[in-house]
Order: sequence, then C-alpha cells, then structure tokens
Amino acid sequence: MHRRDLLKLGAATLATGLTPAIARATAPESAATVEQWGLFEITLPGPSTGNPFKEVTLTATFTLEHRTVQVTGFYDGDATYRIRFMPDATGRWTYQTASSAPELAGKTGAFTCTAPTTPGNHGPVIVRHEYHFQHADGTPYFPFGTTTYAYLFTSDANADLSLEGMKQARFNKTRICVLPKPLGGDREKQILPFPRANTINDLTRFNPTYFQLLEKRLLALQQANIQADLILFHPYDAWGYKSMPAEADDFYLRYAIARLSAYRNVWWAIANEYDLVKSKTMSDWDRFFRITAAEDPYSHLRSIHHSGPIYDNSKPWVTHASLQRYDFENTAERRAAWRKPIIYDEMQYEGDIDRRWGNLSAEEMTRRFWLALVNGAYGSHGEVFISENGEASWSDAGRLRGDSPARIAFLRALVEKITAAGLNAPENPYYLNAGTPGQLYLYYLDDHRPARYDFPLPTTANFRATLIDPWDMTVTPVPGTHSGKSRIQLPGKPYQAIVFEKISDNHNPHTEAAKPEALD
Amino acid sequence: MHRRDLLKLGAATLATGLTPAIARATAPESAATVEQWGLFEITLPGPSTGNPFKEVTLTATFTLEHRTVQVTGFYDGDATYRIRFMPDATGRWTYQTASSAPELAGKTGAFTCTAPTTPGNHGPVIVRHEYHFQHADGTPYFPFGTTTYAYLFTSDANADLSLEGMKQARFNKTRICVLPKPLGGDREKQILPFPRANTINDLTRFNPTYFQLLEKRLLALQQANIQADLILFHPYDAWGYKSMPAEADDFYLRYAIARLSAYRNVWWAIANEYDLVKSKTMSDWDRFFRITAAEDPYSHLRSIHHSGPIYDNSKPWVTHASLQRYDFENTAERRAAWRKPIIYDEMQYEGDIDRRWGNLSAEEMTRRFWLALVNGAYGSHGEVFISENGEASWSDAGRLRGDSPARIAFLRALVEKITAAGLNAPENPYYLNAGTPGQLYLYYLDDHRPARYDFPLPTTANFRATLIDPWDMTVTPVPGTHSGKSRIQLPGKPYQAIVFEKISDNHNPHTEAAKPEALD
Repeated sequence: MHRRDLLKLGAATLATGLTPAIARATAPESAATVEQWGLFEITLPGPSTGNPFKEVTLTATFTLEHRTVQVTGFYDGDATYRIRFMPDATGRWTYQTASSAPELAGKTGAFTCTAPTTPGNHGPVIVRHEYHFQHADGTPYFPFGTTTYAYLFTSDANADLSLEGMKQARFNKTRICVLPKPLGGDREKQILPFPRANTINDLTRFNPTYFQLLEKRLLALQQANIQADLILFHPYDAWGYKSMPAEADDFYLRYAIARLSAYRNVWWAIANEYDLVKSKTMSDWDRFFRITAAEDPYSHLRSIHHSGPIYDNSKPWVTHASLQRYDFENTAERRAAWRKPIIYDEMQYEGDIDRRWGNLSAEEMTRRFWLALVNGAYGSHGEVFISENGEASWSDAGRLRGDSPARIAFLRALVEKITAAGLNAPENPYYLNAGTPGQLYLYYLDDHRPARYDFPLPTTANFRATLIDPWDMTVTPVPGTHSGKSRIQLPGKPYQAIVFEKISDNHNPHTEAAKPEALD
Repeated sequence: MHRRDLLKLGAATLATGLTPAIARATAPESAATVEQWGLFEITLPGPSTGNPFKEVTLTATFTLEHRTVQVTGFYDGDATYRIRFMPDATGRWTYQTASSAPELAGKTGAFTCTAPTTPGNHGPVIVRHEYHFQHADGTPYFPFGTTTYAYLFTSDANADLSLEGMKQARFNKTRICVLPKPLGGDREKQILPFPRANTINDLTRFNPTYFQLLEKRLLALQQANIQADLILFHPYDAWGYKSMPAEADDFYLRYAIARLSAYRNVWWAIANEYDLVKSKTMSDWDRFFRITAAEDPYSHLRSIHHSGPIYDNSKPWVTHASLQRYDFENTAERRAAWRKPIIYDEMQYEGDIDRRWGNLSAEEMTRRFWLALVNGAYGSHGEVFISENGEASWSDAGRLRGDSPARIAFLRALVEKITAAGLNAPENPYYLNAGTPGQLYLYYLDDHRPARYDFPLPTTANFRATLIDPWDMTVTPVPGTHSGKSRIQLPGKPYQAIVFEKISDNHNPHTEAAKPEALD
C-alpha cells in the first residue's frame, strides 16, 4: 500500500465512521459518547516545526468522579496531535490536557462512557484464577491463538487473507510484530516505522503512516474479537532496528505505547526470541518491562518470548509466561515456580519447510494443543508451508493451509463449553487430565490406548461421561451416570479424550470408592 | 509339565540326541567331540545322602595347551552330578575334577573342540566398538529383543507359542526370569526352584526338575539363535523369593551360574526393576554382580534393570546399560557417562491394558525402536493385550498379537544390511541421524515432515540415497548419486527415514560444501 492510499483511507475512515469503536473529539467542545473499553480520541492541531515527536510533550488527565487517569498523547504528523483513552468505567468523564506547547495545553472536555453494545466487547483480557484469563467484564477467555508476525505491515491482500483465516479458524489471539520484519523482495520498499534515506535511519522521528496502518489492522482484529499479542522487539531485522541505541529503543517504546495502548485487544510481548537479540542485555529487557508497565495506563498483559533460555517469569512485571517449548511435562513445575498463566506460544509449526520447527503434521500440532491444556496451560498455533510462487506463508500472514486449525477450534469450543474458570491438572496424574476437582475431569490419553480404564472419579458426585476424538472431532456420550471407580470402554486407538462432568451430588454413595491408583 | 514328563524328556534327549549341541561325557573314558561354544557336560554319580547341594563341592579344571579354566559343577538330584563347560577355542582339551567327595574327585578326561558347524553358532555375544555388540567369532550382533518373562517356566503350550512368535518376528534376544513369577491360578501348583511344603520354602536345596525345564527352554532359544537375557532376581513374587536371606540369595546365584553359564546364549541381568525389591540394598546388588563376574568362567554380558533410579552403570562389572526409559534425547549424555552400549529394554509395551506402560500403539512402539537406534542405542519390544479367556499375555509368554514386530524385523534387516559396526549419532544433529561419519547416515525424521531437505553430506564421497518408510516397510531408491549439500524430496509425512550409503570416494569435489546447519 502506498502512502497516498493510506492517507485516503484515513480520510475515508473519518468521513464514514468505518471504525465505530473510535469516538473522535475535536476538543474542547465535544460532548461525545463512547462505550466502555472503546477508544476515545482527542485530536489537536499543533506545532509542526522542529521535531514534534521529540520536542513536544502532551498528556491528558481523565477524571471520573474521584478517579483520574493520566495518558500520554503523540504526534501523528501533519501538525496533528492525538490523545487516546480507553475508559474502563461508565459515567461522565472529563479531561484536561497539558503540554510544552501552549496551543496544546489546557484543553478540556468531557464525554459519556456508556455500557458496551459492540458484540464481543468484554473489555481487555486480564489474568484470573492465577493460571488463567478472563475479560474485564468477567467473561471467560481461553487463549487459542496463532502466529502472524507480519500481519500489521504486510500488503492489504495478505492481511485480508490472514484475517479471514483467523476468523474461519476461530483463533482468538495472534502474535504479531510491531517493528517490521523482512518480507522478501526489496526490503527498502517495505513501509518502515522510522524515516530512512540511503539506508540511513532517522531514529529521532517516526513515520506516522506506518503506525496508522498498524492501527487499521489492530482495529480489524479487535472487530473480529482477536487479541493482538504485540511483539515490541524482535531479532528478524534488515534495517538495524534490533540494535538501536537504548535511547532510540525507549523513544520507540513510549511512542508505541502512547499510540496503541488504548486498543482494548492489545497485549504486550516485550520481545520475540529475546535471547537472539545479541545487542541487548537482560537489564535492557527488564527496563522495557518497567517502561511498559509505567506507561500503559491500562496494565495490558505483559510477557516476553524466548528461543533458548527462558526469561525469569517470576519477575513482578511479567503477567504470564510465553514459552517456546513443548516439554509439557514440566508445566506443573513452572506453574509452581511462577504462579502465573503459561502459554506455549511456540510449540513448533504445522507445515512442510525444512527447518525442524516448521514441519509438524496437523495431528502432532493438535496433540500439542491438548497436551498443553491437560497440563494446565495453553498452546498457540503456527503454520509454515513452502511458498513456491512468492505466496506469503501464514506465519508472515497469508492463506491458511493446514489441517490443525479446525481441530483447535473444536478444542476451543469444548473448553468453552465445559469450564468458565480454566483447567487445572492434579499432581502426578496416572493418565493426563485437567479440570476442577470434584466437578470436571478432562482426560487426554495421548499415545496410550487402553481398551478400558477404571477412571478414579470421586464418590461424592455423579458424572456424565463423553468420549472425544480430537482429530475426527466427534463427541460420543457414554450411557449412564458414573461415580467412584468407573470402568469406561475406550476406542482402542491413541490420542483419545474423555470428559467427566458433574451432573449431581451423590449424598449416599453406594459405588465403590476409587482406590489410590496402582503404581506401574 | 509334570515331573515325570520332564524325566522322560531328559531320558529321551539322551537317547535320541535331540540336543546335539550338548556332548555328554561319562568320565573318565570319554573321547567326545564338541564344537566351539558348544556345551561339554561331564556326568558323575555321587553321594545323595545329607544335602548334596550344600555339602559337596565339585569343580573341574579344563586345560588347552597352556590355558586352564576352572568351572564349578552342581548336583542335579538322583545322585547325579554334572559339570558343564563351553570351550571357546578349538583343539584337544583335557580336564580333571576336584571334590570334597572322594568318588567325584580326580576324574580326568579329554575331548576335541572342533570348529562350529551348527547354523547360527557364532559364539556368545560380547561388547564391541564401545557402544555395540558382536559375537565371539566377529559376526555383528544388533539386539532386537522382546520380553517373555515366564518363558522358562510357563506351560509347554505357552512356551511353544512364545518361541514361535519370536522366530516369526526375528527377535534375537528375550528378557526372561530365572525365578518364577506368579502366573495366575493356583500359585502353589506352579513348578518352583526350591522344595516347598505347606508354604514353607527349603532354601537350602533346589528342585532340579525346575532347572531342567529352564535348560530345555534355554536350549530351544539357543537353537533359534535367540539370546537369553536371564533375569536373576525380580520383585514379582508369590513365595518369598524376593526377600530371601543373603545366604540363600548367594546360594541360588552360584547354583544358577554353575548350571547355566555354559550355554552360549546366556546374558546375565542381575535384576529386573531392582529398586522395587525393597528388601535389598545397593550393596546386595553390587555383591550379586561381583559373584556373577567371579563365578561365570565365560564373562557373559552383565546388566541390571531398574524401574525408577538408574543403577550406576559406570561400575566396572556392568557390561551394558539396560534401561526402562524412553527419553532417548539423553542417550548421548549416558553414552558419554558410561562408555558402554545402551539398550532401552523397556520403552513401554504395545498393547491395550489399562496400565500406562502397556497400551502403546504399534506405530509408537515402532517409532521408539527407531529413536533408540538413531540416538546410538537399542530398544526392546514388549506386548500386553487384555487376556479375556485366561490366555497368557505375551510378556509372560504366549501368542504374539501386535503389529510392531514386523516393523522391528524390517528395521533389524535394514541395520544388518547397512552396517557391521553399529550406528553412532553425531553431537547435536539438526535432524536425528546415526551411522559412521563419512560412510553412512541413517536419518529418522520422527514427527517432522519437511517436503524437502538439504542433507549435509560430506563432499569427499559419493552416496546413494534410499527412502525408508518404517511403518509401510517400503524401501525406495532415490535416483542419482549425492555428495555435499544434497536436496532430497521427501514424502511429506511424518515418521520417515532416509539412508545415505557411500558408494565411492569423491577425490575432486565440485559439489557445494555442506555449510554448518542453520540455527532455528
């Protein structure tokens, strides 16, 4: 997309209200309305001389009754400044600006925050029940995400294919880079976040068009109820962005947060494969976390993704672990160490390329989602098939070709049906299972295929049992109700699951108590 | 089988020469002939009063030119004593007995040891090339074994089924218990190694009939070229054998070695799941090893099998590691620590029972054999299907029902075709492979399914390539010869293998040198 197209799109958006979640105010006379967790935006004309990105400070203080929230504005080019705010409570909010530029300072205004009516607007995702997530309004949220690194800055055609794929597959999160990654072809023709001339970056200014494109895509994800796991730094670089001076890193980070944090579907991933960015040290990553925690008024989720050594996820600014591993048997230990949700965000990819992380079968990818889940964690999808005709591979955004997404959507629907609080695994289960003690047990038998098994249910309740085939996506109720030690005939093939859901209390248990399970 | 049948069988054997590998001598006038690694047996009448098992000592010294070998005899009941000897060199051997009983002492004789003519007699298996095995005559031996714990003492019908299965599946080793394990039904009716009356064991004597049955079965294995991995102690007990006093343990151990060590297909497994025998300590296991090493004149292979903690296989009396694990990724570390061959003797079993070690699919069992091999080790098979009609399950000897044995036989044939020295794995391979550097590379791609891969072959040789499907058991030559970085189109499904075999030197390499493999 050319810069001119983007500018036209920006104008069209303003004119036609294509982005209804954003209420734009031309302060101070606004009496706008914005729904809870929607985006309220103040647009102010201001100075364009010198370097407005660096030289002009701009903040606004938003007030609701006794509460105040201070947010930072940003320069959007063309003598235009913006302040974005995501109200988290209904009522009459007022605001006042402050700035180093007299014409931007002291602007006041108000808006009414109404209850959300946009379908799927349940507010941002937060950590809940220690190891799980939910939306701010209490709606359960279980991450079943994918990876589309280049979605924000690829061509419209690729982005459209990518979004369509995510909608069809019901992915509700995607991992995407804020800074560009090389997409093949002429790298100097890619749209870039900083001005660049003759391969020299000007790291003291931004290219607003780049961020406007990002925001358009971010909003499209929001409208599809897909969380944007925004990767702030990464090692896939062709322009020097992975080795900027610390001052430029921080400058970029604050700008990105000022622009993007008011979008309710934002998560912050401080980095992808942080340990492959050889020019930075652990104190840099810690500093980025601290800046992000301080600058984001909404405390969006914060994680950092590794390649080799795992970042110390027990540090207080980490909200959840984002792992590149598939050693699910260590999940319990990690949960105990960090006391936070765990997402196995890279469990290798479905595909057929020659890199060993990029050629899993759909069956194996499906299996890993189940293994993550019954160990009390979550998984994320990724896909890379050989691109013969210049076609973008999915992980850079493009057409979705694999066979695991349908199975992942099936699993997501199952989880959403059987629990509101998330699945937790018992200590050292004989066969892998997770659920809620006394209420719910989801077994996944992995490569075991017992012809039958005496499931050790509690005697204090009656359960219904349902056989699940994760690959064939079938759901087969087992006749009768079950309590205590319950023998179930199984299909005799591997990778099968069974769920036990409590249907009633059992006040007079006549059934045989489940004995401690035999040792091997 | 009843005692009377056994005695009849013994007589018949002597009369008809059903067991040609055993030359029986009635000293001293014998001028028998026995082939190398055959069994020469001296039978002597002697005292039957008191407790001949305990009170009579009997040894013989065998001499060939300047060499002497001292072996221990044993009491076989019915006033009969035997001394068994496996000559390991051709030529004219003489012997002389010594005994605490005058009528057994000072007997002399001779026999001629001839070159072996029995098909498959390549001598006992020894360690060779540090991590591998071969027969004493230099014939390569790669263990592809199974598990038939009760083969030695089960019914003839079960033993016949079991042996037939092993032959069909081309297993060349089996793990079998010397002491009985409970087989279901009336345990007091099982044939037992010690006299027993009213549930009281007499641990100062043996039941020769029990051992005669063992020896018949052991010989049947030998005739089928199957190594007998004899488990001397185990925790599966109904009679108190797992918690005998140390004196009885040692008495039994020495008796078993005196009787059995002259069979060339014997391996000593000091215990199965030693750590589940709670009545013994590490010093007991060490002592059993020391006794076995001292008493066995032939230095048959010695190992010990664990359930949880692995025995310290670096101890000098251990010849190879017998593991109950399937974490093959730790093989390199174990090889480096122990500098001995490793057999993953229990990688769980194919089957459908409810214990998690006993319900692998045939596909998964096949996969584990491959994984063991391309990590520079070996695997063993086991099978347990639900026995609905009292039918013995395979691991206790019986009918073979699974689908992995055909694939294991296919793999054995492949390995025997491509190497004489065994397969060793490189350090940290990108995709798993093992072979001989510069000569042979056997890749197993496990759950990876790249559409193509640039295999990093050396430029100094030309190779032929063959695609292997381990499950479909197909072998598909790839056209052309390959040298250096070699792109091979692959079938696009997981669990595939490919072998590169050197066909010639490449003195003028024009091909592109294989670069160091890219990091993930």
